[in-house]
Amino acid sequence: MNSFGRIFRIHIFGESHGDCVGLVIDGCPAGLPLTVEEFLPDLERRKGGVQKGTTPRKEDDIPIFKTGLFNGKTTGAPLTILFENKNTRSGDYEKQRSVPRPGHADFTAHAKYGGYEDFRGGGHFSGRLTVCLVAAGVIARKLMQAVDIRAEILEIGGEKDLEAGLQKAIDQKDSIGGIVECRASGLPVGLGEHFFDSVESVLSHAVFSIPAIKGIEFGAGFAAAGMFGTEHNDAMIDAAGKTATNHAGGVVGGITNGNELVFRVVVKPTSSTPKEQQTWNWDHNQVEPFSVKGRHDLCIALRVPVVLESVTALVLADLMMLEQKINKIL
Amino acid sequence: MNSFGRIFRIHIFGESHGDCVGLVIDGCPAGLPLTVEEFLPDLERRKGGVQKGTTPRKEDDIPIFKTGLFNGKTTGAPLTILFENKNTRSGDYEKQRSVPRPGHADFTAHAKYGGYEDFRGGGHFSGRLTVCLVAAGVIARKLMQAVDIRAEILEIGGEKDLEAGLQKAIDQKDSIGGIVECRASGLPVGLGEHFFDSVESVLSHAVFSIPAIKGIEFGAGFAAAGMFGTEHNDAMIDAAGKTATNHAGGVVGGITNGNELVFRVVVKPTSSTPKEQQTWNWDHNQVEPFSVKGRHDLCIALRVPVVLESVTALVLADLMMLEQKINKIL
Amino acid sequence: MNSFGRIFRIHIFGESHGDCVGLVIDGCPAGLPLTVEEFLPDLERRKGGVQKGTTPRKEDDIPIFKTGLFNGKTTGAPLTILFENKNTRSGDYEKQRSVPRPGHADFTAHAKYGGYEDFRGGGHFSGRLTVCLVAAGVIARKLMQAVDIRAEILEIGGEKDLEAGLQKAIDQKDSIGGIVECRASGLPVGLGEHFFDSVESVLSHAVFSIPAIKGIEFGAGFAAAGMFGTEHNDAMIDAAGKTATNHAGGVVGGITNGNELVFRVVVKPTSSTPKEQQTWNWDHNQVEPFSVKGRHDLCIALRVPVVLESVTALVLADLMMLEQKINKIL
Amino acid sequence: MNSFGRIFRIHIFGESHGDCVGLVIDGCPAGLPLTVEEFLPDLERRKGGVQKGTTPRKEDDIPIFKTGLFNGKTTGAPLTILFENKNTRSGDYEKQRSVPRPGHADFTAHAKYGGYEDFRGGGHFSGRLTVCLVAAGVIARKLMQAVDIRAEILEIGGEKDLEAGLQKAIDQKDSIGGIVECRASGLPVGLGEHFFDSVESVLSHAVFSIPAIKGIEFGAGFAAAGMFGTEHNDAMIDAAGKTATNHAGGVVGGITNGNELVFRVVVKPTSSTPKEQQTWNWDHNQVEPFSVKGRHDLCIALRVPVVLESVTALVLADLMMLEQKINKIL
Repeated sequence: MNSFGRIFRIHIFGESHGDCVGLVIDGCPAGLPLTVEEFLPDLERRKGGVQKGTTPRKEDDIPIFKTGLFNGKTTGAPLTILFENKNTRSGDYEKQRSVPRPGHADFTAHAKYGGYEDFRGGGHFSGRLTVCLVAAGVIARKLMQAVDIRAEILEIGGEKDLEAGLQKAIDQKDSIGGIVECRASGLPVGLGEHFFDSVESVLSHAVFSIPAIKGIEFGAGFAAAGMFGTEHNDAMIDAAGKTATNHAGGVVGGITNGNELVFRVVVKPTSSTPKEQQTWNWDHNQVEPFSVKGRHDLCIALRVPVVLESVTALVLADLMMLEQKINKIL
Repeated sequence: MNSFGRIFRIHIFGESHGDCVGLVIDGCPAGLPLTVEEFLPDLERRKGGVQKGTTPRKEDDIPIFKTGLFNGKTTGAPLTILFENKNTRSGDYEKQRSVPRPGHADFTAHAKYGGYEDFRGGGHFSGRLTVCLVAAGVIARKLMQAVDIRAEILEIGGEKDLEAGLQKAIDQKDSIGGIVECRASGLPVGLGEHFFDSVESVLSHAVFSIPAIKGIEFGAGFAAAGMFGTEHNDAMIDAAGKTATNHAGGVVGGITNGNELVFRVVVKPTSSTPKEQQTWNWDHNQVEPFSVKGRHDLCIALRVPVVLESVTALVLADLMMLEQKINKIL
Repeated sequence: MNSFGRIFRIHIFGESHGDCVGLVIDGCPAGLPLTVEEFLPDLERRKGGVQKGTTPRKEDDIPIFKTGLFNGKTTGAPLTILFENKNTRSGDYEKQRSVPRPGHADFTAHAKYGGYEDFRGGGHFSGRLTVCLVAAGVIARKLMQAVDIRAEILEIGGEKDLEAGLQKAIDQKDSIGGIVECRASGLPVGLGEHFFDSVESVLSHAVFSIPAIKGIEFGAGFAAAGMFGTEHNDAMIDAAGKTATNHAGGVVGGITNGNELVFRVVVKPTSSTPKEQQTWNWDHNQVEPFSVKGRHDLCIALRVPVVLESVTALVLADLMMLEQKINKIL
Repeated sequence: MNSFGRIFRIHIFGESHGDCVGLVIDGCPAGLPLTVEEFLPDLERRKGGVQKGTTPRKEDDIPIFKTGLFNGKTTGAPLTILFENKNTRSGDYEKQRSVPRPGHADFTAHAKYGGYEDFRGGGHFSGRLTVCLVAAGVIARKLMQAVDIRAEILEIGGEKDLEAGLQKAIDQKDSIGGIVECRASGLPVGLGEHFFDSVESVLSHAVFSIPAIKGIEFGAGFAAAGMFGTEHNDAMIDAAGKTATNHAGGVVGGITNGNELVFRVVVKPTSSTPKEQQTWNWDHNQVEPFSVKGRHDLCIALRVPVVLESVTALVLADLMMLEQKINKIL
């Protein structure tokens, strides 16, 4: 399903090189004021074309409100937002139809959809759709004024000096991976559920919808494998549940404990790399060298922080609504 | 929700020290033969009391089929299975009501459920409920004869020599964490969906319902952060999508590519440890030293492999049904 | 799916002649006191064996709480209740395996489940499962103290004198249908949603899960077809939305308007009738006369009121929770 | 939720006097060819402005494919279709803001959404959104070539002579109700499920999303209340389940039996009527006479058949996909 959330529900649609991408939010409380301007900073953070290592493709990324907004406020009816695709160069891709690009969804999409998929620029699988997630995140955050969500890049190419990591890729004329950390403070105790709808469950469900993410860890994460119980356990130091350490990352038994929510994700190197690669050619029926055309990010991790914050925001907004912490009419 | 799956749907219920734990499976195809005996090996693998480092609590763990089975075969109606709780010593817990145990859900459950939660042995939050997941897994695997799912412990306490890792904990009189890897082969190309229902999304959703898991990574996982694109990309070497390497862990664009599905999870050290800890005392309203009573595993990771296989099986069975790869009548 | 509800969710399972029938309620608020005794009046109302025209099969129908209850109160974890089947005479049914009984699900269940279905007494399709709905209804009503829900039989066999209608069936040695009306007062304005989750949508969805119901109408219902707009429209007479008439049955635009919710259902004649019928014989491969064995109700409508109230209660409780009108901790 | 369906899922959005209305279909099989032209006949049938008794508002109603279509065929990704609103006269409505129109959702929407709702022309509650249902129906029908679905008006204003019924309303300068019947043939045995997802359940759920429908009955429907069991029961006359009569309307035990699916709905008189009515005035705080402005249908039932067929088609397509009767790649 292209839907996420139980109460605050988002549906996304669109293709990289089609008319537009967009989203519908169902279950957004009524009375939330929204202006185009307040979407721009996060949309700008997500955009390529600015930082070293990001794609030169530039889209205006202006949210077009189609439904659900009246006199500048949400109505309680489904909120539809479109983003036009203007700056596409599909010709680049049509030439490569016979070569399923390594690391991309070309092969799996082809198999799953029988060749009917829109393959241009990754079609519906494109990172272009993350613009929808960011738009949803802007709205979700406005519903949770007391919650602060921030993501930042921890390392690129194994380097904590991010410039150095990026330079490695530039020097190698290759793409490179990274690690991004996200923190949310100001959360109430009690979000999430035992077992299937634990905070880790629903958050990771949403986070893995971001293309290129291949791992997630909460709190101490994989380091916990080498820890003793008395090291990992976070001692409570007051009646409100504040803990001396935060190895749990703010989630115990699947439920927020009021401490900071902390998790990290790994972002694989951009699949499109300037370097020549080997892959199967469907027309020639053999392995052949292959070079990616098109415009791409050297390090997609650079664009992930705002997307990660956004996805986190929409998950948390939904959990808050489930716990009746956000009113249905604002 | 205590439910998981879109077509092959599981609901779990029960408490550690109540009458029973159990599950209902909705959407199981009709005509699947089931006997008590075929559940026993996996239930045995999950049980404590055998391996060094696991809890001396012993349950018979005999599945009791209550509904949905007729003449030894599934009927297509909801399949209900109970496991009785016999070997409980709740008294151990009642004494500790005033101390929310660090690492356990005592505090979060208390906050979320207003003190009405069944706190004995962790109640509904207990690892006891994983017996339900294992039972569901046995059934899911029978629906996918061509699929082979195997999990194994990779390291304990940072040691690849597992005995050594365990000995560290025993020497320290403390609990210890570990890493478990799961692999599934024989999968068709095309399971999973773009974005919100990617294989990584639904699998991680289910996996984080297993208590004590705090991270998951697919294929190269977190190591991808230090890789170049040409290193990480898996070159296709035949028309069926076989790849020379498998850094993607068998999932590209959220969809299985026919290669082995590979992922790893980190299991935190058992929260209950023989060592004295500090935590808040609700009665005395201050931080106090505290020792865990009750019977517990030194290294809960030892019991995770079969649970992880089971959860993987039930996710895959559901995805297979969505893709019409399993018939509704067998 | 054998599940209903978005927040207050019920799952039902079991067969007429199996071990038991039962239910799991997920999402029930924590802190609700429950005793066996408070279930008995409604369970008694549903039971056969008392009224003229109802089946002589008698079950004790004692709810057995298996999970989710602690110290006599709900815990917020899934609440599981079983009802044992004791008073079964399956032999009656085994003889009739080759004859799909007209009006029963024998044929459709056989086709859908490939002959693996438990056919004894209708198996999972039996009205026996309505005991689960009644149990859920008892709980749902306790969550909505201000709401009063009452159903009553309006006519039997076309007669408003119910005794007379019943006597017609007894005289004819046949079964007979009826109409049942349900009214709920004390509802807040604003339950239900535009379009797909209108009150009429979700209520009818749930109501048609009651076996033998073949129609539902709200307010003026089918009579509206012969009315003019000015006749049917309910004029508002105060600021709270009170209307002079109630042709809408308390729902406008899919949303409750604070007036009484009123709807009626038609209950078909019991499919099992003492009279000889014609039907196909699978063994003889021809149409043959056939007589129903087993114990049955002459007029199943007699048992519907409490079931209808219960289903209405669980729908309303779910809608109330969605609108944040019931707290998650009581 | 503004969503319907488990596999073939539709989401609708938009307002009567906003920019557009539209829909997203998730789960549509890949490879279905779609042209604008094939939507036009059904869209034309739904439109007002042609028949006596329908509104003079005319929209072009040209489907604009935004996503999910590539080279004229569905791709398996979400299919988004918009319909622009051009022919709106919102000024008519702004004047009436202080008067919640009887029979309309003005009052309930205002209460539920705190006054933030788009009230112009009924906003999101408008019958305008049925254009989305019709578009979805066109697609659903193309997925089920062997299934034939037809709806027709049975009576208007209590008259089987429809002209006569309509003339009554015209003479009275009032609006009038009607009854519409829908039949679907060519269905396989086995669609639908026991209890909560019976065919009657899911179909009525969807049907009541059509504005103005206040009742539904299957097969003999409410007439069954006056029938004996031997009258109502449909005798099977061959091994394929063909029945001599069809009082069940093609659904037994919640599951299709291969006979024609037959149901009827009642359509209330259009709430907007040229006659003066009484209702509450929010500004004057008293009951006052009131006349509807704007353009409206005298008998909305005239436009219901194609909408009913469409909704039936999308429910059946979803059930067919659940039963694996429609392939995921065409």
